[in-house]
Amino acid sequence: MQLQFAMDVSTLDEALALCRQVAEHVDIIEIGSPLIKNEGVTAIRAITASYPDKTIFADMRTVDAGALEADMAFGAGADLVSVMGGADDDTVRGAVAAARRRGKGVVADMTDVRGCVLRARELAGLGVEFCEFHAGGDEQALCRYSVRAVIEAGRQSEAPFSVAGGVDLDSILDVRASGAVVAVVGAAIRRAPDPRAAAGAFRVAIDTASVFGDVTPVRQGRPHGIPCGPGPGQGRARRLADRARNA
Amino acid sequence: MQLQFAMDVSTLDEALALCRQVAEHVDIIEIGSPLIKNEGVTAIRAITASYPDKTIFADMRTVDAGALEADMAFGAGADLVSVMGGADDDTVRGAVAAARRRGKGVVADMTDVRGCVLRARELAGLGVEFCEFHAGGDEQALCRYSVRAVIEAGRQSEAPFSVAGGVDLDSILDVRASGAVVAVVGAAIRRAPDPRAAAGAFRVAIDTASVFGDVTPVRQGRPHGIPCGPGPGQGRARRLADRARNA
Repeated sequence: MQLQFAMDVSTLDEALALCRQVAEHVDIIEIGSPLIKNEGVTAIRAITASYPDKTIFADMRTVDAGALEADMAFGAGADLVSVMGGADDDTVRGAVAAARRRGKGVVADMTDVRGCVLRARELAGLGVEFCEFHAGGDEQALCRYSVRAVIEAGRQSEAPFSVAGGVDLDSILDVRASGAVVAVVGAAIRRAPDPRAAAGAFRVAIDTASVFGDVTPVRQGRPHGIPCGPGPGQGRARRLADRARNA
Repeated sequence: MQLQFAMDVSTLDEALALCRQVAEHVDIIEIGSPLIKNEGVTAIRAITASYPDKTIFADMRTVDAGALEADMAFGAGADLVSVMGGADDDTVRGAVAAARRRGKGVVADMTDVRGCVLRARELAGLGVEFCEFHAGGDEQALCRYSVRAVIEAGRQSEAPFSVAGGVDLDSILDVRASGAVVAVVGAAIRRAPDPRAAAGAFRVAIDTASVFGDVTPVRQGRPHGIPCGPGPGQGRARRLADRARNA
């Protein structure tokens, strides 16, 4: 499972300052919608240039003009772009076609998608890399919110999925055990007293589980067809875990 | 009914060139999502500075962080911002609260919203200025697409609404007769051989109907409670119509 850091900040200066602290521990750097809307693709271009070895995820959250907006982000260096999972199929197809022309990928953001479990299967059929089961910040602020429901929806979809929305050290291993391909962490790193140490702790938690298997109780049973032991990424995961332990 | 010009271009230079041609004929200048994502709020700031007497609509299409994104656009000078109609209620509330603090407004974009007629009534209750019943460019490209269905959905909502998505000179009077508060026109102006003349033709069509009443057949009957004859804007509409005719 890869670790995606969601930078929910509005300025490039803040984003670059955060990247300097946490980039060594994360696989995917997510450039959030507010930052893109505030600074434009300049933000994507600057972060891509500074971190060429990282996967750069531009959270475009496209709802229309799929090819145009995807091309804009890919042209600035992004490796992954998001479209809203509830967008018209042709919007998704346009973004996927743009991605395939460049050997890049599209992620479907499932925020506010009704019937998200079935829709995720359709989106996988349309060619997205994975679906991000996602509770936005406004939804997380509600007292009834729990990331467990988001994890469970992703698991039920049986499509490749990531989980975003309040993932913390208490829930990261549940995310991994669910079979998610990516865990998205934002505030738990950004708002930590020491973001670098926080990112490192997530790295260790993920990589330790990759090497030794999941030890967290899986509340809803194993996902279908997704083994939870060390997978194809074991070699790289072990190296990362060793590095984190020895750091 | 006001005329909103949707600039579906990606660069500020293209947008300013279009504004120079059509601004005199339109009430609301819409800065599209691709332009905002490409150039950031700089685009909003530049257009607002050039057209201080126009209503500036920033098509932010916010799906989360309602207050943050609305504040960003209002801070750059926008008068109206859009949130997605399918967004979480708290996202809409956040944007509306930000608008009220500044005496500005929020528009709900109904693209891809299931149950959009009922949702529009909820959104009106949450405090949006109006709901934009909207078919995106990707949806319009489908052979089965008709703007009549979009108009009819807006009419049925009985909430204040605008219509966007392929509105042309053939349909503009149907939009007006439906009781829409705003007609959004994009490609029919932008792709016209002479955008200035095209915008002027929309202006004359709207203002003539405002003065003399609707002469187009209303296919689905009058909307409830919305008179179609000359309304409160008659004086201004007549001046505009006279000016357009005498131009």
